[in-house]
Amino acid sequence: MERQDKELAFMLQYENIAWFEDGRVRILDRRCYPRKVSFVTCTHYAEVAKAVTDMVTQSAGPYTAAAMGMALAAYECRNESEARQRQFLREAADCITNARPTTAKRMAQICKTMTEAAEAAWGSGVDVAEAIKARAIEANNSRYHKIAKMATYLVGQIPNGGTVMTQCFAETIVGMMLKEAKQKGKTFRIFCPETRPYFQGARLTATVCYEMGFDVTVITDNMPAFVLKNENVNVFTSAADAICMDGHVINKVGTFQIAIAAKYMGIPYFVTGAPDLVHPTVKDVKIEMRDPDFVLQAMGVKTARDGVKGYYPAFDITPPELVSGVVTDQGIFCPYDLWRYAESGSTGEYEVVV
Amino acid sequence: MERQDKELAFMLQYENIAWFEDGRVRILDRRCYPRKVSFVTCTHYAEVAKAVTDMVTQSAGPYTAAAMGMALAAYECRNESEARQRQFLREAADCITNARPTTAKRMAQICKTMTEAAEAAWGSGVDVAEAIKARAIEANNSRYHKIAKMATYLVGQIPNGGTVMTQCFAETIVGMMLKEAKQKGKTFRIFCPETRPYFQGARLTATVCYEMGFDVTVITDNMPAFVLKNENVNVFTSAADAICMDGHVINKVGTFQIAIAAKYMGIPYFVTGAPDLVHPTVKDVKIEMRDPDFVLQAMGVKTARDGVKGYYPAFDITPPELVSGVVTDQGIFCPYDLWRYAESGSTGEYEVVV
Repeated sequence: MERQDKELAFMLQYENIAWFEDGRVRILDRRCYPRKVSFVTCTHYAEVAKAVTDMVTQSAGPYTAAAMGMALAAYECRNESEARQRQFLREAADCITNARPTTAKRMAQICKTMTEAAEAAWGSGVDVAEAIKARAIEANNSRYHKIAKMATYLVGQIPNGGTVMTQCFAETIVGMMLKEAKQKGKTFRIFCPETRPYFQGARLTATVCYEMGFDVTVITDNMPAFVLKNENVNVFTSAADAICMDGHVINKVGTFQIAIAAKYMGIPYFVTGAPDLVHPTVKDVKIEMRDPDFVLQAMGVKTARDGVKGYYPAFDITPPELVSGVVTDQGIFCPYDLWRYAESGSTGEYEVVV
Repeated sequence: MERQDKELAFMLQYENIAWFEDGRVRILDRRCYPRKVSFVTCTHYAEVAKAVTDMVTQSAGPYTAAAMGMALAAYECRNESEARQRQFLREAADCITNARPTTAKRMAQICKTMTEAAEAAWGSGVDVAEAIKARAIEANNSRYHKIAKMATYLVGQIPNGGTVMTQCFAETIVGMMLKEAKQKGKTFRIFCPETRPYFQGARLTATVCYEMGFDVTVITDNMPAFVLKNENVNVFTSAADAICMDGHVINKVGTFQIAIAAKYMGIPYFVTGAPDLVHPTVKDVKIEMRDPDFVLQAMGVKTARDGVKGYYPAFDITPPELVSGVVTDQGIFCPYDLWRYAESGSTGEYEVVV
């Protein structure tokens, strides 16, 4: 694997992103990691889209999977005419974009960027799939560097010896935050709500924190308010699946109620990530409702009796009044003034330009 | 079984309380119900105490178990001298009282009431164990009648066709609430957070609601705020393990953060139960911290990697500012004015007189 970039190598360790190689995309199955390490192997772009739909990977994983899926699509149609290849990539972009509704706009932007890489490759005669893959790696490196900057701002808000609460698997930013803290000689405790129904907090976030040498404690999702009240938590932080330009934060379900409790307790909530130009207002966001039966089991074991209904919103919406600051690569912004970030000249975490 | 009392028979169906018969106490194992129906059989009072400690039964179950455990203790020492029996019951009361710290004061009161029944039996020559059992049934019937009154007041706050959110397994009051609603020709939807780590909401509350013919939906513990915001919830309600005279409510962990979210959303939170004279202020309450490893699994399957820590407060404390009303057998009281309930002449849900 082309992991020359040190930053990339560092993050791959924790992010376990999708990877295109030898005509297939391999995606770590985060649904069972770290108890079981297995990969989903895709030989067709539609399988990459399905892996995203099925939450084989989540958090920022789908964005890399989307880019690598586009490389796979280019590989699949490599022997076709340029016109047919162009059509094939359009179909792939459409399929991958719609893998999950809430993140569709960001996915569309990534597929567009990859299609531009293909266009450049056709013009210069280089291997299209490899060109897309190179662009995907470049985009990720750019993202990692931006996230590293966010990490410095975030760590600046955490007192040495303090306590942090996270929500869900903020993957790259969690790893970067801990790396930055170590470099600064800071340490702190981390409380991770388990994040039902997939347990990303218990399985993924806690694993990263533990492996980075931090004191990490998992709690169930009904305990955050108790912990905020009784364990001297200094900061609640999460990443976001989207940060609307009007300051609304879309993230894993549960973020909203922890943010309410944090506000009630006078504890700041910092969301990391770049404001999303593709989501000018919260009205543009569609919350994905997933298979309701999935909340009626835990780790594969049924909980409720037959006949009882389930209900499964994948994300929730935290309004700007509960957000203390949006931690970007350009500093910490007020959630009511995010257009100023756009004016800073940064193209955002995912290089989104609209 | 002596289920002549219709009210008792109705509640036993849902409460599955402990029962003393033939020299043993049988307790339904709520840790696996309803997926598996099994009983823990105790032939020594210490086994009853251990069953309470191990959460074989919870919610109001331990109070009946305590009373029946005292009957068992009387049975165990039936051939001893009255002085030895008295000593044996003192030891049993002490052991059972301390099965779980947060509810110790209420348990002590119940053991005291059962000891008084024994005293009366010694004086009149009747079977002591049976006398205690009869007193336990009498106390439960009295409690059921009080809870039936609470149910009428609670149902009065729920609009027909509305939506209710519960927390944990409020057993008797849930059954009574639904029975009362049916009698009044009211129907409503019920959302039950699953209540980690034991899933009492998913397993027990949802089962009662379903079997009573109501529309019931289970959500994970990170979803209440989303549901309160998006599903037109009219009322959040829970029972309590203790209601302090200063208006603080002790209940299953998670109640606090749902109450915060409900307040934020302008939705009333009604707690059912009698204010606890044994807890004049919240300062008298000790929150039980249980085995931290228990939060690192779900339905018996490990979630986090080895080395990650857990943290398990069994209850949390909701302050009076988040409580819209305390629904008692004497009407709905302001949480800041609970001494007035004591002055009403009622001896409370558990006939506690101090």
